[in-house]
Amino acid sequence: MNNLKFSPLKKLEIILEGEHQEFVTDLLDHAGVKGYTIVNNLSGKGSQGFHEGHLMFNEDAVLNMIITAVPEHLVNPIMEGFAPFFNKHSGVVFVSDIQVTRLEKFNKN
Amino acid sequence: MNNLKFSPLKKLEIILEGEHQEFVTDLLDHAGVKGYTIVNNLSGKGSQGFHEGHLMFNEDAVLNMIITAVPEHLVNPIMEGFAPFFNKHSGVVFVSDIQVTRLEKFNKN
Amino acid sequence: MNNLKFSPLKKLEIILEGEHQEFVTDLLDHAGVKGYTIVNNLSGKGSQGFHEGHLMFNEDAVLNMIITAVPEHLVNPIMEGFAPFFNKHSGVVFVSDIQVTRLEKFNKN
Repeated sequence: MNNLKFSPLKKLEIILEGEHQEFVTDLLDHAGVKGYTIVNNLSGKGSQGFHEGHLMFNEDAVLNMIITAVPEHLVNPIMEGFAPFFNKHSGVVFVSDIQVTRLEKFNKN
Repeated sequence: MNNLKFSPLKKLEIILEGEHQEFVTDLLDHAGVKGYTIVNNLSGKGSQGFHEGHLMFNEDAVLNMIITAVPEHLVNPIMEGFAPFFNKHSGVVFVSDIQVTRLEKFNKN
Repeated sequence: MNNLKFSPLKKLEIILEGEHQEFVTDLLDHAGVKGYTIVNNLSGKGSQGFHEGHLMFNEDAVLNMIITAVPEHLVNPIMEGFAPFFNKHSGVVFVSDIQVTRLEKFNKN
């Protein structure tokens, strides 16, 4: 079976307050990233104290993780787009190496 | 303390519509994979448009991520088993290198 | 833009029954780990049988995944701290290489 597509990409896992999610997804859209997956209602502890997902009264304050896979040459432009945001807001980005199938969903045309 | 087991494995993160979850877990079971973890109710955007987990009326249409760890020699057979499925259905598989403890839960006898 | 901080770290993904979550977060706190993110209400299948998150009656029995990023020199001490726990309890730890921005949230002063 030779129709399986396998390509090295960079996985970004972006964890931030849910209220700022659109800033990230808009930036990914503009960078040509076609697909991402969002894990909602995370809890987290960071320098800003403990955010307990299911005890939050303000729904906008819960944490989300946005997972996407991008070609390596997009990592730096995306990170530079995030930098001013993460200088002001709580959040973190994990970058790692992955192999991905169905590249057409994650790559620019 | 020498009783901690550490082994290099491949992590598979399989993101697909929840209604097809059993196809994947059955295939993993048949491949001898003993353990996996499922993150339910993901949102996602891909070439099929935006799937907003918490707004879905049809519970079966939300996205799930199935996380598992397998020995390297199982990656290709599993991927070849997935290929016909991903030619027809929305979804993606991320493959990455990990070190795992408690290998006995993730490896074939 | 040169103010983006990028550092190689080890990502730990610790999957265990939610009722034991505090053991892990306390150990991480004592190891000087400043931040972690928790994905709640996972389903899982392992040698202990199938744990179906949304069908659980006992809320304490669902699985959680605790995600954190630590400097490499902390991996072994943390793992050795986990070892007695994982000899008695269900769970798994995935260790992988990542690049992280906002290191100050995940590193010891």
